[in-house]
Amino acid sequence: MIEIGIVGGTGYTGVELLRLLAQHPRVRIRTVTSRGDAGKAVGEVYPSLRGFIDAAFVEPSVEALDGCEVVFFATPNGTAMRMAPNLLARGTRVIDLAADFRLRDPGVWAEWYGEPHACPELLPEAVYGLPELQRSVLQGARLVACPGCYPTAVQLGLAPLIEAGAVQLDHLIADVKSGVSGAGRKAELSLLMSESGESFKAYNAGRHRHWPEIVQGLERMANERVGLVFVPHLVPMIRGIHATLYAELNDPGVDLQALYQQRYRDEPFVDVLTAGSHPDTRSVRGANACQIAVHRPHGRPSTVVVLSVIDNLVKGAAGQAVQCLNAIYGWEETLGLRIVGLYP
Amino acid sequence: MIEIGIVGGTGYTGVELLRLLAQHPRVRIRTVTSRGDAGKAVGEVYPSLRGFIDAAFVEPSVEALDGCEVVFFATPNGTAMRMAPNLLARGTRVIDLAADFRLRDPGVWAEWYGEPHACPELLPEAVYGLPELQRSVLQGARLVACPGCYPTAVQLGLAPLIEAGAVQLDHLIADVKSGVSGAGRKAELSLLMSESGESFKAYNAGRHRHWPEIVQGLERMANERVGLVFVPHLVPMIRGIHATLYAELNDPGVDLQALYQQRYRDEPFVDVLTAGSHPDTRSVRGANACQIAVHRPHGRPSTVVVLSVIDNLVKGAAGQAVQCLNAIYGWEETLGLRIVGLYP
Amino acid sequence: MIEIGIVGGTGYTGVELLRLLAQHPRVRIRTVTSRGDAGKAVGEVYPSLRGFIDAAFVEPSVEALDGCEVVFFATPNGTAMRMAPNLLARGTRVIDLAADFRLRDPGVWAEWYGEPHACPELLPEAVYGLPELQRSVLQGARLVACPGCYPTAVQLGLAPLIEAGAVQLDHLIADVKSGVSGAGRKAELSLLMSESGESFKAYNAGRHRHWPEIVQGLERMANERVGLVFVPHLVPMIRGIHATLYAELNDPGVDLQALYQQRYRDEPFVDVLTAGSHPDTRSVRGANACQIAVHRPHGRPSTVVVLSVIDNLVKGAAGQAVQCLNAIYGWEETLGLRIVGLYP
Amino acid sequence: MIEIGIVGGTGYTGVELLRLLAQHPRVRIRTVTSRGDAGKAVGEVYPSLRGFIDAAFVEPSVEALDGCEVVFFATPNGTAMRMAPNLLARGTRVIDLAADFRLRDPGVWAEWYGEPHACPELLPEAVYGLPELQRSVLQGARLVACPGCYPTAVQLGLAPLIEAGAVQLDHLIADVKSGVSGAGRKAELSLLMSESGESFKAYNAGRHRHWPEIVQGLERMANERVGLVFVPHLVPMIRGIHATLYAELNDPGVDLQALYQQRYRDEPFVDVLTAGSHPDTRSVRGANACQIAVHRPHGRPSTVVVLSVIDNLVKGAAGQAVQCLNAIYGWEETLGLRIVGLYP
Repeated sequence: MIEIGIVGGTGYTGVELLRLLAQHPRVRIRTVTSRGDAGKAVGEVYPSLRGFIDAAFVEPSVEALDGCEVVFFATPNGTAMRMAPNLLARGTRVIDLAADFRLRDPGVWAEWYGEPHACPELLPEAVYGLPELQRSVLQGARLVACPGCYPTAVQLGLAPLIEAGAVQLDHLIADVKSGVSGAGRKAELSLLMSESGESFKAYNAGRHRHWPEIVQGLERMANERVGLVFVPHLVPMIRGIHATLYAELNDPGVDLQALYQQRYRDEPFVDVLTAGSHPDTRSVRGANACQIAVHRPHGRPSTVVVLSVIDNLVKGAAGQAVQCLNAIYGWEETLGLRIVGLYP
Repeated sequence: MIEIGIVGGTGYTGVELLRLLAQHPRVRIRTVTSRGDAGKAVGEVYPSLRGFIDAAFVEPSVEALDGCEVVFFATPNGTAMRMAPNLLARGTRVIDLAADFRLRDPGVWAEWYGEPHACPELLPEAVYGLPELQRSVLQGARLVACPGCYPTAVQLGLAPLIEAGAVQLDHLIADVKSGVSGAGRKAELSLLMSESGESFKAYNAGRHRHWPEIVQGLERMANERVGLVFVPHLVPMIRGIHATLYAELNDPGVDLQALYQQRYRDEPFVDVLTAGSHPDTRSVRGANACQIAVHRPHGRPSTVVVLSVIDNLVKGAAGQAVQCLNAIYGWEETLGLRIVGLYP
Repeated sequence: MIEIGIVGGTGYTGVELLRLLAQHPRVRIRTVTSRGDAGKAVGEVYPSLRGFIDAAFVEPSVEALDGCEVVFFATPNGTAMRMAPNLLARGTRVIDLAADFRLRDPGVWAEWYGEPHACPELLPEAVYGLPELQRSVLQGARLVACPGCYPTAVQLGLAPLIEAGAVQLDHLIADVKSGVSGAGRKAELSLLMSESGESFKAYNAGRHRHWPEIVQGLERMANERVGLVFVPHLVPMIRGIHATLYAELNDPGVDLQALYQQRYRDEPFVDVLTAGSHPDTRSVRGANACQIAVHRPHGRPSTVVVLSVIDNLVKGAAGQAVQCLNAIYGWEETLGLRIVGLYP
Repeated sequence: MIEIGIVGGTGYTGVELLRLLAQHPRVRIRTVTSRGDAGKAVGEVYPSLRGFIDAAFVEPSVEALDGCEVVFFATPNGTAMRMAPNLLARGTRVIDLAADFRLRDPGVWAEWYGEPHACPELLPEAVYGLPELQRSVLQGARLVACPGCYPTAVQLGLAPLIEAGAVQLDHLIADVKSGVSGAGRKAELSLLMSESGESFKAYNAGRHRHWPEIVQGLERMANERVGLVFVPHLVPMIRGIHATLYAELNDPGVDLQALYQQRYRDEPFVDVLTAGSHPDTRSVRGANACQIAVHRPHGRPSTVVVLSVIDNLVKGAAGQAVQCLNAIYGWEETLGLRIVGLYP
């Protein structure tokens, strides 16, 4: 049994980590921190966890995490980079679910996150925790940066095309839609049910922090520059991301269905649906799964449309983090993650 | 007072017509037909209309519509084209909210709607009821084909670009999202709340009947061929359409905000939001309005992203039909349509 | 035209007042205050009001309201009682949508609202603005206290029974359910869509501020003490209140349907549905209406079950306030309020 | 490993059984029947089950179920009673999730379900599958009738009071609220999202089939007649039941919190919340749990208000059926059911 610490246990990714790790056979949750709820029992704050987690929240500190072999950060951006150096120095592994270690270039980080990076010297070591793309370097990793929710859906959706050199790289479009839990557990007017329920809108259409992260990932696949338009939208539902991806084919004759099935044949968590399908976010609700379908729309045969869905809190956050944990230790990657989606 | 008939009063566009016409100062609802609910009082079937509509539903027939100066068809596709010739011959004007008279070419109609057109001889006379684009020919029209909900949002969103020759015509993308009322009031499994609630998906990604209608409209604006990718999605909300439109600019230096404001300066129902805005479907809920914003996304300055929202049942159906009625008679186009959206 | 001021224009009852008054034929909105949004155009903050309200929000003060003949308070509890004396002294009428003037007894106010009342001398003059029960004293009133949303649904639901002496007064149960807009436009965690969506719960089951208000109203009808159990619940929807009311009949032989129809025969905004009906909150969405049905449940003939629905923001707040305005001036009570509910 | 058959695998209780049994360590799903989807792979119809269930649906018949040691019926009422005699005769155990074997008296069954019972001779043997009340007779049972969703929430909520003789039995009120999945997967207009979303209503206020089932259960606890008012409501959410229960205390001095905690101290699936709590349906979403809180409302100390929540598809249906399976075989009752609720 591995002793686990979770920093930031009261956001949605934190609670979701607790749900998953409470049922993981090789870990024991030792410490869960929360600045706001320190002192309260986990089950008092989250009644869904009554009977599963006995711990109480404690104030976050490096000392409080003593004895944890792995620490997950389910915190706002900018927290993990302040505590990680100290934890790593003590031999603790760090899996960050926020953005602190996702961008390789500290200058880009500063530009998009509005402050200098606190430990740029660690960036080269950080492994980008998308196992389907980075599996080989995850085993044994000390510092893992879990991808954002949009970047997961978009990169898994586009990877087969880009790796195969099948599409024009300067003209990719990602029209992405997210449930409201993607915005986190923050008391903001725009997230009230009266504001976000029964309505749909785009946001940050001109500029969103996941843009440089996705571009970095796509360029790593392509080994050259890519041009990406990225427009996020807010869906009046709690969980789920749907990415609708558009690209121009170099050769309209390519067999896209075969390309995708081949690429993800051995992936337990990426599921290429049969031709003509439309994945539905509900089918992956609560599950660590990405379902993908590929289309060639009427009227413009040179375009490929990829539909890619995940649960933003699972394959887009906590589930992926647990998958990374399994990969770090060389365990079966599905350990603790064989969860059927909650339908209806 | 104009005497009005409504065929198909028990679908969502029919009920919405009743809501709007019940408060229109120049019309009297004389006849409302319904095959399934004939004999029942309107207010019994739709309690929201108690006290506003005293009529009872009657079986649909040309005779039952006798005495109506204008008849609205809020019926499934294929109904209006069977009754319209007879009504027109009796001097009754027809405003069809379904697809029967939207496509100019009967061959295209047959291809997309699966049966030959019943009265192709009327197609040349039918006016496409999008007043912002067809106002000049609406006055006095005898036969009006109201646009579909998606086509309204997409055409109003793209018109300024295409009319100005500002974008490449072979490469337009419409990623559109609709609330579930757009699918109509039909007892189908996929429309159950347990199926469509709390979930998001694309549908008909390869082929949707609104594609040829939109292409026809865009080509009318452009006077040349256009290439359009059209991908519809289902949003877990009742009302609202959000179109996210992508096009490649011919001249990245164009002032798009000025272009849009200029184009719609005198339109009472098309509202160009200030630069940087993101229209929200809730702001037009229940209102006969289209709100539009224009963006230039980070990372690809040659692309324009247009966000266009309507209420599918109002500006996308019943409201537009009433606007057409006003235009036919040369009344103030806002008559009966000065309705504030229902927020929250 | 009456010049109108609205204090607190950025909460949900404030926006709803703006929607209704923008279309009222006898008023002109002169001043709208907002502490947080002062300086911004109303249409900038609420795009649904673009084109309907040209005003900008101003800082609240008695001076800013100069020239207003009537001032509506759509503010948190405790605001109106601080400004009302000054306004009344200047000859301005005050219609308060909050709780400040609802309770007759300043001691009860202090007990339930946690501070002494700021102007107890005005309480005797304040008219409780439920026209169906207080019409006779509304005409010419200077100070009106609009009822809360729950109290409106419950009092209209129980009035026929209590006025007729038909039920035992010591044993009334009100199991009430509200959409989330009833909690107001406040940045609170519990109101996030991720928290209140797709879930149902009771709250304040032991003690809710609407309890003394309802009891005061019922006792006014009964002229004696009543015993009331009041349990509110939160429904995952935006608008709507449904009260399910239970009482023990003194005479099980009474004709309840006739009793209710007779009582509300002349009321334009209270609609007794046919026997066996179940009112649905959607049928009154956006409308100033209360729909009521009366049942005698299987298995216990001595109990009456009353179902009563309103839109909490209309008949439960802003619509009722406009109805009171009409009553004050002796106008037709339906002026500006003939609005069909938004279905679906 | 026990070989399992499921009749009616395409309704919501059927799919939920598949979700739970797919992860149960002691069973193997051998046969899943569906009249409508026979021939299709389970994962084709329900993409959430891709990778978990390899079977295809087959036509229902006793022969098709050959080799199954236990057969679950997740069918409409009236199906199980036609196949059960034959299955039992072959030595197969039957667990029915519908109503066929819930009522002891075939006359009552005929009255409420509209046809004579097909095998009244089996009714005496059928065990009512609410383990918290019937555990002693479940072990070894051949025929189990799983309770309805409302009856589970109501009986678990009232049992401590009735078993202790704490309340008046002639005057119980159950005001219950259900998510729409409780109505099943049927193509009916009233279940469309456009109809049931964003709205709240009561239904069958005068007479609902769960009334005799609940009364039978309460009378078994009480050993005397009970008087129950039962009013169900439809909540615009997919999963969840909330029962608000009212009863008159015989002795207002009783310590209710202690009574409930004592009664359910050893129950793994019934969780009495701390005093003052309000259970939320989301906290048990997807989990086989009932959370309960007890209140004494202000203004009427002689009344007790019990709040009881379950997931209608889990503890109200499929989870309970699996719990019964565990009880029949004398396995740990939590086997395969240690599932954390899906929050948010």
